[in-house]
Amino acid sequence: MQEPMTYRDRLRVDVLALARRLLEAEGLDALQARRIASEAGCSVGSLYNVFGDIDGLVVELNAATLDRLGRSLSDAFQAEVAAGLHDQLLALALGYMRFAAENRHAWEAVFKYQRTSVVPEPESYLEAQEQLLALIAHSTAEFITAAPERELAARALFAAVHGVVALAMDNRIGGKLRADLERHVRFLVGVLARGIEASGGR
Amino acid sequence: MQEPMTYRDRLRVDVLALARRLLEAEGLDALQARRIASEAGCSVGSLYNVFGDIDGLVVELNAATLDRLGRSLSDAFQAEVAAGLHDQLLALALGYMRFAAENRHAWEAVFKYQRTSVVPEPESYLEAQEQLLALIAHSTAEFITAAPERELAARALFAAVHGVVALAMDNRIGGKLRADLERHVRFLVGVLARGIEASGGR
Repeated sequence: MQEPMTYRDRLRVDVLALARRLLEAEGLDALQARRIASEAGCSVGSLYNVFGDIDGLVVELNAATLDRLGRSLSDAFQAEVAAGLHDQLLALALGYMRFAAENRHAWEAVFKYQRTSVVPEPESYLEAQEQLLALIAHSTAEFITAAPERELAARALFAAVHGVVALAMDNRIGGKLRADLERHVRFLVGVLARGIEASGGR
Repeated sequence: MQEPMTYRDRLRVDVLALARRLLEAEGLDALQARRIASEAGCSVGSLYNVFGDIDGLVVELNAATLDRLGRSLSDAFQAEVAAGLHDQLLALALGYMRFAAENRHAWEAVFKYQRTSVVPEPESYLEAQEQLLALIAHSTAEFITAAPERELAARALFAAVHGVVALAMDNRIGGKLRADLERHVRFLVGVLARGIEASGGR
């Protein structure tokens, strides 16, 4: 028989659900301790008691976002598991692009939130990052056989695709990028896949 | 004989120099109208009279940063003008990385400043972006012969390198990136150059 939830556990679940709705509807600026406490019907003190501070809450939200992103990309990867490097990388990159577009505020919070506390990120957060990078590394395994180089490659490939998506979402470099985003992603993945294939054996 | 500067012209020059020092020393948050006016010895009204609003001031600072970046990358490119695609792209990418590291706050302001006004960016700003992209496009001209594809390629390549640099500067995806930044840039440029060379004729 399941233990009944304590007040603290229930508050955590309720606040996370509320904060996620606020984040999705209004963006990071909506995540103010006083407003969340007021809407959750608890005191700011209770909120801090559960999450430490607002950083703690945002880090939990970001960990949940990374987890959803990881599952979404894992599904995209599974659909191309029998395909070659190009199609696998493209599935991951387009999956990343779509997740960013459909979860704009939550996705931005992962990359834009400036933490004020010095507490390290929780293990689950780092694990979600590693799982994401592992999918990319897996795609390249046939061509990049040394594990350390494969790990470096996965981080660089992630950052490259992230850069194309993030600049387009911000629409900062010229005004044309957002409309052209999918073409940019397809071009970049094409070049990257050919470059990795051509490096096989070097 | 040169016309003497008007009060308005002198204020513009003084405020831009002051704002640039504030930005470099303390970052974007230091650019508050009241503080700048106080340190420049003018009223907030005079400040707005010259720059429109704080957005106008930041856009002028950002245009100056893009101009300095462009000149720095142009020098890097000239040094490799007789080299091949890989060495040219690497010079541009490493030049970009160094500029970002050495002008951290000014560089971040270009990409992170959230404008509040709807006035379009000035022509000089867009021109500085185009010049930067033209350097990249020039590197690839031997392999990507169609101009529209070359322009798309330049934007995608810029965004890819920017992504690697920006994530490392933020140090967001894992804790290892900052130290590994130059290795990531070299890996990425290596893959991109091979990929572009391999695509010649396709």
